[in-house]
Amino acid sequence: MQFSTLDDISGFCRELPGGDDAAAEAAALRQRNLTKPPGSLGRLEELAIWLARWQGREQPRLDQITIAVFAGNHGIAERGVSAYPSEVTAQMVANFAAGGAAINQIAKLAGAELRVEPLELARPTRDFTMAPAMDTADFLLALDAGWRTVPEQCDLLVVGEMGIANTTVAATLCAALMGGRGARWAGRGTGVDDAGLLRKRLTIDAALKFHRDRLHDPLAVAMALGGRELAAIAGAVLAARARCIPVLLDGFVATSAVLPLAKLAPGSLAHCRAGHVSAELGHRELLRELALVPLLDLDMRLGEASGAGVAILLLRAALACHGGMATFAEAGVSGAG
Amino acid sequence: MQFSTLDDISGFCRELPGGDDAAAEAAALRQRNLTKPPGSLGRLEELAIWLARWQGREQPRLDQITIAVFAGNHGIAERGVSAYPSEVTAQMVANFAAGGAAINQIAKLAGAELRVEPLELARPTRDFTMAPAMDTADFLLALDAGWRTVPEQCDLLVVGEMGIANTTVAATLCAALMGGRGARWAGRGTGVDDAGLLRKRLTIDAALKFHRDRLHDPLAVAMALGGRELAAIAGAVLAARARCIPVLLDGFVATSAVLPLAKLAPGSLAHCRAGHVSAELGHRELLRELALVPLLDLDMRLGEASGAGVAILLLRAALACHGGMATFAEAGVSGAG
Repeated sequence: MQFSTLDDISGFCRELPGGDDAAAEAAALRQRNLTKPPGSLGRLEELAIWLARWQGREQPRLDQITIAVFAGNHGIAERGVSAYPSEVTAQMVANFAAGGAAINQIAKLAGAELRVEPLELARPTRDFTMAPAMDTADFLLALDAGWRTVPEQCDLLVVGEMGIANTTVAATLCAALMGGRGARWAGRGTGVDDAGLLRKRLTIDAALKFHRDRLHDPLAVAMALGGRELAAIAGAVLAARARCIPVLLDGFVATSAVLPLAKLAPGSLAHCRAGHVSAELGHRELLRELALVPLLDLDMRLGEASGAGVAILLLRAALACHGGMATFAEAGVSGAG
Repeated sequence: MQFSTLDDISGFCRELPGGDDAAAEAAALRQRNLTKPPGSLGRLEELAIWLARWQGREQPRLDQITIAVFAGNHGIAERGVSAYPSEVTAQMVANFAAGGAAINQIAKLAGAELRVEPLELARPTRDFTMAPAMDTADFLLALDAGWRTVPEQCDLLVVGEMGIANTTVAATLCAALMGGRGARWAGRGTGVDDAGLLRKRLTIDAALKFHRDRLHDPLAVAMALGGRELAAIAGAVLAARARCIPVLLDGFVATSAVLPLAKLAPGSLAHCRAGHVSAELGHRELLRELALVPLLDLDMRLGEASGAGVAILLLRAALACHGGMATFAEAGVSGAG
């Protein structure tokens, strides 16, 4: 196991490896010489420079992309907070294996390898309105599963999730670490009706009350109010940082999974970009808290890394321009007068 | 020539062919049966249905995509409204031919054919603060050049432009057809300084005053205050409508080029989507006027179809999901409870 105690995680976050300033500067210089007004490719320029910083090369590449989708089940699903039954988590894992889900099509289009990691689906976490969702051993195991999913070397990691009831988990983490109650954070997820939405709010409020003494501690919150697939995402994002691999985060749940890391140490998400902002209530506010500007805003709310998967295409566009365009000198084009 | 008089254009816009409702309905039905909560792919669902409507098939395709970039020069460039000299228009056309521009890399990535049409670059339009930019013959010729650029059959048309000083042209068209003066519409384009920005505003105000008697007539405005590359874009968009080809519009200039069509006839842009919203002042407001919601918002402001070119990738993602995903029945996944 990468981390044997919670203190190991805190310690790691206090000594995070930084990016490669020289590679980033070289990439920025290259951008200024390409045949376009400076800055006119907007985010595409920033993305090329960000990839250069974390890959440590002026000309970044996207030959090996891993999309990691973690799946988990949740005790609070029993409280009627989702439009779908818990069995759907395993059914969708089977659908991923058979190639029938949205992320299968998107991964293929984007030229990425899809890794799906189901995390003890037959053993849901505990109902966190009445107990901690996980104990320390459970939490560290899930975190480790995420860590081990990340290849030693790859050019980009994309993280997403599948887990019936996990928008309630995400909303609870946001409420615990950013303030407010259920009414502020509970959205319709996969499409709950008004009664389901009310149950979500009450579930969140009950959890906040039950765990009120541990809300000051980000890792205690991730353990008591989180879920296995969220812990695995945090573990994968830490592994990527250890190996200087840039990361695209998917939607509300995936982003909430790394909120505890940001609360532990500012700058712990410097190697991450938000692939998109989802239609789920709360995601936009969460991204603002983390100072992440999403690449896409397409009203998606599917999870399973689908939004971030589509955003891979933007990174490919950024690198196509960065690597393929002529400079002013090469093309004989006049500069600004 | 497709249109021999301005009245021919107005007549065409009064009898626009509609899309295929049955194909759109079949595509919408297919979306509801795919293994995802209804609506959870957001814009990707809407795009698949939109392509189905205009291609007239439940399963749209993107085998043949044409990106048309029109280039023109402008008399008002002499007024110091751009950071670059007029020679850059021809230099960039040469850069397109040599494959060194951003749009070359994006077209290749997106699997699209790039057609570049320079329009009498050695004969700029007249300075429209003192005369109509084009006479009727000039305008109809440019419109026809755009019409003829569109293939008889293709799956998608993407329109963009290159033309030093043409953000001033676009701003003038917006002011003429939507109200306001130079201060409301003039942005920094390729990056003019404060003095250049002031010259832009004054140029627009002078043009509005000189042409004050024709501002009620959209085609007269397009002729007197437009440019050849903008007229060509309007012609290409009309040709696409005649052939039921869906269109992605690029940035501020390309969108302003079709504003006169929208003013002529509501619904004339139903076959169009906005590829992106650019960083140029005015584009967001122009899109709102046209009820177009942009697919991307990446702070780009390059023109040459680059933003819409990147948006092709989103259409590919939409169709990958639409065509490749399993249905609930095929995958054995439970529906909403």
